[in-house]
Amino acid sequence: MTDGQTTSVTPVTLSFSTDYRRIAVEEAWAPKQLLDLYRSELAAGNITDPGFRSLWGYYLGDTERASSLTERIVEAGPSRIAAMDAAGIDVQILSLTAPGVQVLAKDIAKPMAEDANDLLKQSVDAYPDRFSGLTAVAPQDPEHAAQEIRRGHDKLGFKGVIINSHTHGEYLDDKKFWPIFEAAESLDTPIYLHPTTPSAQMIQPYVEAGLDGAIFGFAADTGLHLLRIITSGVFDRFPNLKIVVGHLGEALPYWLWRIDFMHAIAVRTQRYSAIKPLELRPSDYLKRNIWYTSSGMPWAPALNFVRDVVGKDRVMFAWDYPYQYDAQEVADTDAIAWSPEEKKAFFEGTAERVFHL
Amino acid sequence: MTDGQTTSVTPVTLSFSTDYRRIAVEEAWAPKQLLDLYRSELAAGNITDPGFRSLWGYYLGDTERASSLTERIVEAGPSRIAAMDAAGIDVQILSLTAPGVQVLAKDIAKPMAEDANDLLKQSVDAYPDRFSGLTAVAPQDPEHAAQEIRRGHDKLGFKGVIINSHTHGEYLDDKKFWPIFEAAESLDTPIYLHPTTPSAQMIQPYVEAGLDGAIFGFAADTGLHLLRIITSGVFDRFPNLKIVVGHLGEALPYWLWRIDFMHAIAVRTQRYSAIKPLELRPSDYLKRNIWYTSSGMPWAPALNFVRDVVGKDRVMFAWDYPYQYDAQEVADTDAIAWSPEEKKAFFEGTAERVFHL
Repeated sequence: MTDGQTTSVTPVTLSFSTDYRRIAVEEAWAPKQLLDLYRSELAAGNITDPGFRSLWGYYLGDTERASSLTERIVEAGPSRIAAMDAAGIDVQILSLTAPGVQVLAKDIAKPMAEDANDLLKQSVDAYPDRFSGLTAVAPQDPEHAAQEIRRGHDKLGFKGVIINSHTHGEYLDDKKFWPIFEAAESLDTPIYLHPTTPSAQMIQPYVEAGLDGAIFGFAADTGLHLLRIITSGVFDRFPNLKIVVGHLGEALPYWLWRIDFMHAIAVRTQRYSAIKPLELRPSDYLKRNIWYTSSGMPWAPALNFVRDVVGKDRVMFAWDYPYQYDAQEVADTDAIAWSPEEKKAFFEGTAERVFHL
Repeated sequence: MTDGQTTSVTPVTLSFSTDYRRIAVEEAWAPKQLLDLYRSELAAGNITDPGFRSLWGYYLGDTERASSLTERIVEAGPSRIAAMDAAGIDVQILSLTAPGVQVLAKDIAKPMAEDANDLLKQSVDAYPDRFSGLTAVAPQDPEHAAQEIRRGHDKLGFKGVIINSHTHGEYLDDKKFWPIFEAAESLDTPIYLHPTTPSAQMIQPYVEAGLDGAIFGFAADTGLHLLRIITSGVFDRFPNLKIVVGHLGEALPYWLWRIDFMHAIAVRTQRYSAIKPLELRPSDYLKRNIWYTSSGMPWAPALNFVRDVVGKDRVMFAWDYPYQYDAQEVADTDAIAWSPEEKKAFFEGTAERVFHL
């Protein structure tokens, strides 16, 4: 998601063959009920998270752009299909927009996650060839979240789980959350670790400079979150767990060599109780358990770099509707000098395999 | 700097021609007086900065590695020269190690910066062909810092300025610090924006996971700092200012396209008072005012990516002695398939030009 790009979609002449479907895997949606709840909770002063107040204080405001965004994000029908058609997108995997229910109090969050999942199923059922869905959860109650993951997979037919980074400033490396990983691994269903604004414990230097959103803060929080998951040993405990990350990995591929180097030192010196030996190098998990999407990064140099260092078969397409959706970006990405087989894998094959579409 | 690699230097057979000097531009040094001051201030509880306590609480501890590091960092004579010789390093540009005097109270910091600079000059004078120096400053008093920059340049013969990221949690985009930029620009002397541990306002999610140091936290703080400098308009006010950044740009090159995209939206929507129109795109400043060093990133994929997106002539060599120094890294970097002219620029020419060596 972005800070609020609401570009209108101008049909683009697609000058390339389409012997593959284009599957966009980080596509935002929210039921109107959730936005109403955000609005009332903000008005009541019940949500103090500074990132949420920055983000949704803006989107629930009265600018033209904010109302355009909220109008689009609650819709999962003809308008969205038309935008997809105009850009050559065949399928959207819909997920509950950040921060989902994770900013709410536990007792409100749990029924809201269930309701959101039930509502999302209605849209997916109405357009089964165009939409798939991810299960929203309330990590505030890890056992409930695990149960909802199972319901989403078994009963609702969803293809993975959406977790919008931290939950009340807590990260998933905390073992109390590991029932979530256990459920996802046992069902072989991926978790999409999606950004949200940095937690209250770190947002100040970002938000005071207007950098807490998609320009930098989202990645700071989510990259840290993913690294914490890796270094905590989650993937030794759950070796078949699959995590999908947007924005080409929130810069962890850029740091791949350095993370390995410094992690080895930290293990050897036992400087930190939190840094323990792992079975593999951090980069090995980045090449075994993590998949990467192009959300917000339709830029050939970074796409090629990440494909080179983590593997071409680990990078797939995302469009980030309705935050940052631009038909031209799809055409530009499709025009990168990859082979037909590579394009098919990027736009279709990898997503089909990871999400079991 | 790293979390404390103190690899001993094993001579490496350099299998490449050396028709260029190898100039290492991010090389740490500290007078014993500063470490003594750190020790006494820590013991007295006068420094509460959690990052400093994590970093120097460790290095001033009694492990073998800590004492090996402190022994090497205070030395700028025969031992250092021997390590350089063993790895094929011709010149080190020495700078006061992080956080320098920036963590101290203003009235202690100012004379300590002056003393450190006077002491560094003695080492540079003793080995004028092997050492150059950067001026340490106390940004706590911006006018004093500007004056010390002028003294360092005019009287001590130093080739630039070292600033170890934030000062008591404050970043250089704050206009009160701009006399520092004014002095550096007017003398055409570069500022090396070096990492330190994240500021107290953001360190908690890093330090609790053991990730506040070179593995991730250093880059998080310094990358944010550089982006704040760019978006605040520093380079419109000081168009000839030169900033040098380590670790291949602290990931900003990775985010180059996305930062431009999101900055344009933030400007257009006027969402943040801190985000104002700039004369150029953020990426233009990254290609005009910023130079990049390879400190801690002797890894061909990232080196080539950064050279591709910001320009080959903007990336130069650093070794990060005595934190992360390894003769093999020098040999590996020198073995990358660049042309002789490109290698000469990387190891020597760009540093000579930027630092006026």
